[in-house]
Amino acid sequence: MTKVSIIGSGNVAQHLIQAFQLDNSIEIVQVFARTKKNLAHLLHTDRIISDYSQLQAADVYIIAVSDDAIAEVSSALPFNNQLVVHTSGTVALTSIAITNRRGVFYPLQTFSKDKAVNFKTIPICLEAENEKDFETLSSIASTISDAVYKINSEQRKALHIAAVFVNNFVNHLYQMGNEICENNQVPFEILKPLIQETAHKIITLSPKDAQTGPAKRNDLKTIEAHQQFLTDENQANVYKILTQSILNNGKKL
Amino acid sequence: MTKVSIIGSGNVAQHLIQAFQLDNSIEIVQVFARTKKNLAHLLHTDRIISDYSQLQAADVYIIAVSDDAIAEVSSALPFNNQLVVHTSGTVALTSIAITNRRGVFYPLQTFSKDKAVNFKTIPICLEAENEKDFETLSSIASTISDAVYKINSEQRKALHIAAVFVNNFVNHLYQMGNEICENNQVPFEILKPLIQETAHKIITLSPKDAQTGPAKRNDLKTIEAHQQFLTDENQANVYKILTQSILNNGKKL
Repeated sequence: MTKVSIIGSGNVAQHLIQAFQLDNSIEIVQVFARTKKNLAHLLHTDRIISDYSQLQAADVYIIAVSDDAIAEVSSALPFNNQLVVHTSGTVALTSIAITNRRGVFYPLQTFSKDKAVNFKTIPICLEAENEKDFETLSSIASTISDAVYKINSEQRKALHIAAVFVNNFVNHLYQMGNEICENNQVPFEILKPLIQETAHKIITLSPKDAQTGPAKRNDLKTIEAHQQFLTDENQANVYKILTQSILNNGKKL
Repeated sequence: MTKVSIIGSGNVAQHLIQAFQLDNSIEIVQVFARTKKNLAHLLHTDRIISDYSQLQAADVYIIAVSDDAIAEVSSALPFNNQLVVHTSGTVALTSIAITNRRGVFYPLQTFSKDKAVNFKTIPICLEAENEKDFETLSSIASTISDAVYKINSEQRKALHIAAVFVNNFVNHLYQMGNEICENNQVPFEILKPLIQETAHKIITLSPKDAQTGPAKRNDLKTIEAHQQFLTDENQANVYKILTQSILNNGKKL
């Protein structure tokens, strides 16, 4: 039985608690939360603490707090030489106070508060300072996910930026598509199956092979017609930059 | 029984043939194809013709050829005052020769040659010059799809541009994410569940409500760190433009 304690009560903390509770090989010793009631629906209140001095022995302490608070929280822990990890995609392992053995336990997914997730498919990116700690993290991660990766801090930084492209920026393009529909009295609903299919395609095809559209075909006539249609400066600008990027990509081949 | 003939033997034509064959209320009278063997796996060769003069009576003639060929094909049809439609997202209804009653039967999806599609979920956008023809198209479309829309040529143009944003541009962002991963020895696989979840979210949330990330949070520190990381000029440029677009969006609220 691996003993885990969690510091934090936000989205990631709550999803981790629920995932760990599904597996008998993990014991959640304690969860640190400033206000107990955030977690009262998830575990018995005598396991919820709000004072670091109450922390008991565990195999790993998972700090699941906002990026800015990680360094401070890690410094406040009242013990040395324990395995302490954070769950952030952007913060370096070295941001954790050096008094403990440090690591990263980063589940790469967008967590929404009220939306249940199937943790089995969520990639967990792990980093540790020594092989034994890595194995501890790996065995914990494997109980909740089928996709466990060894990723160092530099790789994690690249991964987070790539995630901004395929998640944040992609969602913003959905929003721009939505705007174009609204401005022209077209229901955005019509585009939803296409959006799903676009995401689904790259499970089996590389994005390069899946690329279609006027820029890919070098269809300058259609591109010009689209540019004339887009009178909104920002829409026209984004259209121009991404079209140019696809066109240049073709030339690189 | 509604009688349909199809002109063309490409992706869209083949997917339509297969969809119509599933329904007993539609009879495929003939398919026009320059070379019969493209379609030999789909229907009996005596229904495949390669000479317009062989075309028999049908309730609707569906021109499923490349955009550039629509006007010419429609002019070559050896009859008048019949219902003739094309399947394009970009070509105007008026591109069809005026000698016949004109319409549009546009299934909005990316069709890949070897990938079966479930037509029931594919939106079909219809346009016709009179109410009776619209009803004919609507009854045909409803047999193969649960999502039938009345969309005029101007709306269809907007829809196609919005589709470029949510399909072509989104896929290009997948490719850029893939490149960033490759350049940093990170498997792109890790991002695939996030990509699926990003697409899945907007089925129930508006893209505006689903937006997350550093630009949405106005987290200028992270944005600056990302910009320093991106040494590729094109990646940096796309990052800048889309981040700015999300930031400005926040200001508009």
